[in-house]
Amino acid sequence: MAIGTRVVGRSLARVDAAGKVSGTAIYGADFALPGMLHGKVFRSTTPHARIVRLDVARARAVPGVRAVITAADVPAVRYGGAVKDETIFATDKVRYIGQPVAAAAASTAEAAEAALAAIDVVYEPLPAVLDIETALASGAPLIHEAWEGYTAIPILQRQGNVCNRARIVVGDVERGFEDADHVFEHRFRTAVVHQGYTEPRAAVASWDSGGQVTVWSNTQLPFEVQNTLAEILELPPSKIRVVVAGVGGGFGGKLRIGVEHFAAFLARKCGRPVKLLTTSEEELTAAYPRQGALVELKTGVTSDGRIVAKAGRIWLDTGAFAGSGPGVASVATLVLAGPYRIPNLHLEGFAVYTNKTNCGSYRAPSGPQANFAVESQMDIMADALGLDPLEFRLKNIVRDGDEGPTGQVLNAVGLEECLVKAAAAIGWKNRRPEPGRGKGLSCGWWTTTGGSSGVYVKINPDGTVALNTGAAEIGTGALTGAAQVLAEELGVDLGDISIVSADTFSTPFDLGAQGSRTAFAVGNACRAAATDLTRQIFALAATQLGVEPDALALTDKHVVAGDRRLSLADLARLSQQTGGGLIAHGTFIAPPTPYDTKRVEGHVYPAFHSPSFHAHAVDLSVDRETGEISIHKYVVAQDVGFALNPTSIEGQIEGGVSQGLGQALSEEIVYQDGRVLNPNLTDYKMPTTLDVPRIESILVEHPSQVGPHGAKGVGEPPNMEPPAALANAVASATGLRVTSLPITAEKIALGLVDARAT
Amino acid sequence: MAIGTRVVGRSLARVDAAGKVSGTAIYGADFALPGMLHGKVFRSTTPHARIVRLDVARARAVPGVRAVITAADVPAVRYGGAVKDETIFATDKVRYIGQPVAAAAASTAEAAEAALAAIDVVYEPLPAVLDIETALASGAPLIHEAWEGYTAIPILQRQGNVCNRARIVVGDVERGFEDADHVFEHRFRTAVVHQGYTEPRAAVASWDSGGQVTVWSNTQLPFEVQNTLAEILELPPSKIRVVVAGVGGGFGGKLRIGVEHFAAFLARKCGRPVKLLTTSEEELTAAYPRQGALVELKTGVTSDGRIVAKAGRIWLDTGAFAGSGPGVASVATLVLAGPYRIPNLHLEGFAVYTNKTNCGSYRAPSGPQANFAVESQMDIMADALGLDPLEFRLKNIVRDGDEGPTGQVLNAVGLEECLVKAAAAIGWKNRRPEPGRGKGLSCGWWTTTGGSSGVYVKINPDGTVALNTGAAEIGTGALTGAAQVLAEELGVDLGDISIVSADTFSTPFDLGAQGSRTAFAVGNACRAAATDLTRQIFALAATQLGVEPDALALTDKHVVAGDRRLSLADLARLSQQTGGGLIAHGTFIAPPTPYDTKRVEGHVYPAFHSPSFHAHAVDLSVDRETGEISIHKYVVAQDVGFALNPTSIEGQIEGGVSQGLGQALSEEIVYQDGRVLNPNLTDYKMPTTLDVPRIESILVEHPSQVGPHGAKGVGEPPNMEPPAALANAVASATGLRVTSLPITAEKIALGLVDARAT
Repeated sequence: MAIGTRVVGRSLARVDAAGKVSGTAIYGADFALPGMLHGKVFRSTTPHARIVRLDVARARAVPGVRAVITAADVPAVRYGGAVKDETIFATDKVRYIGQPVAAAAASTAEAAEAALAAIDVVYEPLPAVLDIETALASGAPLIHEAWEGYTAIPILQRQGNVCNRARIVVGDVERGFEDADHVFEHRFRTAVVHQGYTEPRAAVASWDSGGQVTVWSNTQLPFEVQNTLAEILELPPSKIRVVVAGVGGGFGGKLRIGVEHFAAFLARKCGRPVKLLTTSEEELTAAYPRQGALVELKTGVTSDGRIVAKAGRIWLDTGAFAGSGPGVASVATLVLAGPYRIPNLHLEGFAVYTNKTNCGSYRAPSGPQANFAVESQMDIMADALGLDPLEFRLKNIVRDGDEGPTGQVLNAVGLEECLVKAAAAIGWKNRRPEPGRGKGLSCGWWTTTGGSSGVYVKINPDGTVALNTGAAEIGTGALTGAAQVLAEELGVDLGDISIVSADTFSTPFDLGAQGSRTAFAVGNACRAAATDLTRQIFALAATQLGVEPDALALTDKHVVAGDRRLSLADLARLSQQTGGGLIAHGTFIAPPTPYDTKRVEGHVYPAFHSPSFHAHAVDLSVDRETGEISIHKYVVAQDVGFALNPTSIEGQIEGGVSQGLGQALSEEIVYQDGRVLNPNLTDYKMPTTLDVPRIESILVEHPSQVGPHGAKGVGEPPNMEPPAALANAVASATGLRVTSLPITAEKIALGLVDARAT
Repeated sequence: MAIGTRVVGRSLARVDAAGKVSGTAIYGADFALPGMLHGKVFRSTTPHARIVRLDVARARAVPGVRAVITAADVPAVRYGGAVKDETIFATDKVRYIGQPVAAAAASTAEAAEAALAAIDVVYEPLPAVLDIETALASGAPLIHEAWEGYTAIPILQRQGNVCNRARIVVGDVERGFEDADHVFEHRFRTAVVHQGYTEPRAAVASWDSGGQVTVWSNTQLPFEVQNTLAEILELPPSKIRVVVAGVGGGFGGKLRIGVEHFAAFLARKCGRPVKLLTTSEEELTAAYPRQGALVELKTGVTSDGRIVAKAGRIWLDTGAFAGSGPGVASVATLVLAGPYRIPNLHLEGFAVYTNKTNCGSYRAPSGPQANFAVESQMDIMADALGLDPLEFRLKNIVRDGDEGPTGQVLNAVGLEECLVKAAAAIGWKNRRPEPGRGKGLSCGWWTTTGGSSGVYVKINPDGTVALNTGAAEIGTGALTGAAQVLAEELGVDLGDISIVSADTFSTPFDLGAQGSRTAFAVGNACRAAATDLTRQIFALAATQLGVEPDALALTDKHVVAGDRRLSLADLARLSQQTGGGLIAHGTFIAPPTPYDTKRVEGHVYPAFHSPSFHAHAVDLSVDRETGEISIHKYVVAQDVGFALNPTSIEGQIEGGVSQGLGQALSEEIVYQDGRVLNPNLTDYKMPTTLDVPRIESILVEHPSQVGPHGAKGVGEPPNMEPPAALANAVASATGLRVTSLPITAEKIALGLVDARAT
């Protein structure tokens, strides 16, 4: 089988580009069925309270209203990921502002809103726990007084308001500090931020007469939603079909069930399809944002700049329900270690309940929070030691053959190349070219999430190819990347491949579009299917040409034996006539990454699979009066293993950096007494295209041993390093070290005033 | 692997029963998309004419109209099955009343109708050919003056208005007639009849921005429609997704493209989804009804009742385009042979063009026409020879090891058992119990259509099973039968299986729901998938239980090794976590049926695969004044090989007999000057439930060597024998031999008047 690089490695347009740029693509939020009703969710307006009275009789009588449901109308199940702590609606208590208490369906969205307005609820307030410190204080009110009774993943370390404590212990950190010439201790804080997908969460549910429900939604994880709906609806998964109707951005915010279950319950009650669509207010108060974090780092360094010990703790404010928190706390410890060789580590990640919305996963969950702390401290320490921050990093970074923090052996480590190239591109040698101007560096490592992906590939009678995948295209171009792998293997063009994706009934299982895994895992599944198909194609062609299969090559849509050739189209037609057609199932499951089990505790994710490495560099000026930042240039050098589609990856880098800049400089869900003060896209400040500087992408290729053609996951990392790079550049430009996100102009200006005063 | 008969062989309710009986099932005709437009087809009102003028300008200006298209707006392609003789719209000429000339789409169906009314067309009449004799007369006008230039299957024997002549020659028929003691010659005629599906043909088409069209229709053959649309739209099949949205009966009438292409063209023009739905008038004037036929039989018999020679010719009036005609003419010759051992045969089938609607396939295409002639003549000859018709048949029928007419060796021939059991059940010994009352018998054989079927089966994490099949459920219960096979093999219940079917993008290739093949072929594909799945299940279970796979059995949703067991659900979950999930592709392709190639010419279908055998018997009285028939009892004994689901098969038999009774007694599309006189369901007389007598089904089981558990195709045969059984019973009751269908009361009454007069 001839493998070239005819299709992979090329910057081909995404297969879904036309619809996206012309505005004709259908997203989940657009999906509609004839005769469907519109649903709305009635949400708690108080952060912690007992429900004294809930009366929906008046709401049910509103004209056009077909159903109003509360906890009394749905099963009393507790569901959730790592911890089953959630209920469908609040039952006895509400635990955050925005928690669903009831839902209504009506012939119009306005009538459904009118129903919500007619719901009569009386709360008896309870003391609310609104920050990490209060939650951890001795004698703090428990968010979940019955937490010990909840079903949870056994490895979790739970205690009171802490729903997981993940720990890595390597060597003897106290001995390490004794060996150090200098010990640095710092504290950092980050804000709660939203994924900022432009399409709100949406779902349409419709039941058939056989008791089967079909849910069209914009979830990233249709199989996960199917299984969660099965738990919630108390039905077997085989009665629940989840179809991804298009996703207008997810970034981890559409991993978990959102409005699908409300649509399903209301549709069953009404005997009609029901659609739910969230508002910006619901998104900013009751979605699954990134956890706000508190980080403490204590790092011991020798005078010549070797890091010998690090103790770190990160507390993640995960809100009223565990959500992704326990897993994110686990990943956080690996990020806290940093991409450095450190012989003594004591790192802890805590997921902490508070009376706020339950947080979830956002592109590189825990990455920006932990990396901001680690990489800010690296610069602080370098400055204190009189070392160049680049040199200090190069002295300590991991290289091929080194161990990661939990003992995994690293290979294909492109970090040095990333750092050197990013520094060169930003002009590192001239770090402070003029007063008020400075450059900053940061680097990191990240995982390519494992899990399994299955595809099912058919050769059409015209020689084109139908790819069926359980993974959804969430806007990253990952399925284009996977299709490029398939096209390459089968000797066809990318344009020959059509994709059917993400239907839990008709497509093979896939762990889902998350964790930078899609092009990687689906691409590998495509290779497996292509291998089987090639075997079938060669067997058929061999009988037609009267040669041995070994004598054949597959190239340019033809099977070739010497000067004789048969088109893939002819073979596919022949196979339909004489066999079942050319069809194959391909599966990929990431091989386990060995690690030292003695080093970890409470770890949902104990190692990074096929890790990627990256360095960011920024050149900026700060207006010392206003604190306003002007970014002159932003550089990302990322070890992508192999660039399946360079332009697509550059798009991921540009998008990830843009989001990272938002988190670094302007974004924050501002809470007061548990209430969001800026629940709209005017006051929640995401960068616009005008705010995003020129971003230069340098693709470094140290091939993964597992990924297709050596590819590694690329989607999440670009979002991790901007906060630290920005903070380091601001410090370089102004001498001011900002240790909390976002680094607003106001914070810089006031900080400079303080600095001048002291 | 333990195979019992826990699920197969049992009369389980169909998986789609609930929706069908509660009226909540969705059919293609119900399918709708938000914002869709409504299309209508403008049709010829003259049977043969030149189009002198066609002006749609006024039509395009009608309020609400979005598009009016004619031949000028679509590709000038010729398409078709055996012969590519059709155009999308009439171009220079119209060739039958009902032929599409233009189509319109508008915001409402009424506006589209108004557009049609505003189309300005002028015809210049040409001499029309309206019956078989005129078409065959020397110097007859040619329906297709350019027929020689059309692309056609090479084996077809075409000449002028004959678009295929299929021939079987065995032995020397003239020598045979010389050896015979008696030679009988008869002529029979049958009418054009409609399949009578209750749901009109319907399609909704919608284009996406990538230039891909999705068509939801009620076709029986989605892959065929995909390929035909590809030809017509001049696009690769990979740009055309055909999804069967539910089928409210097909019976062969929904095999070929109907309104799908008009929907696709109009939708592309309008940039909006478009729906087309036919009216009863369109169904009865411009669908694909059963060919009217003329049959001549000449049969030589010895005095002791052995048939020694048969010459037969059947002319099928296939209308203005070949459609299924060439293939049906081929099958007809095999039916003309009858299920008899006859050493000398000369049989011919002709598909003849006329200026009528192009005929298609209807449940056992050619079966009722040819069988009516053959089995009527059997009784005439038995009477003439003074033999009991049952004894005469038993003397001549084929048995295991005999050759079929084209040389195929027959096995599992349950015909004798069918005849004997049907005769016993009807009380054959007392054939004429009272004046005006008589009993009739008929028998026949039929094929199980071959071709390939693929399925793709997943075990869900709850141990239930998702079956993906390219075949549509058209109301026969065939997919329930196939699912029973799958459930049996996997040791689960029928209720554990969910079915996704008939989506050309997401389901494997299937030749389609036609020719009694679905339960047979899809069932076999399910067995293949189950074998692969069982291997996967055992491999996984073996590692879990620490035993060899050979030591395992699969039973009752568990893998069992001695007293240890693992549930299918646990294994499926484990497989999702550690592998790609339990998933398999299964394919079945019918093995070739060897035949003597020297015996046949013009044969699309030269042998019957896994043939079924059947005998019908009826007991009836005739009112000698009015000619009205009262049926006392109707018996069908059918060799089904193995009854996968007895109740389901009885339903097929009852439905097939009901349709057969309609064709025998009342149904006829009545033409005058090429115009249908009864294009509505008041004047086209299908039997109602009140007209259908009690039908007794006797299931005979001589297992097929190929079918799942020995099953043979069962759907079409019950429709073949009613006309002859009725005609023979009427002759037995009254002495009157009716040789043309339908055998109306009027025909009997007038026949009896004539008989009394002579």
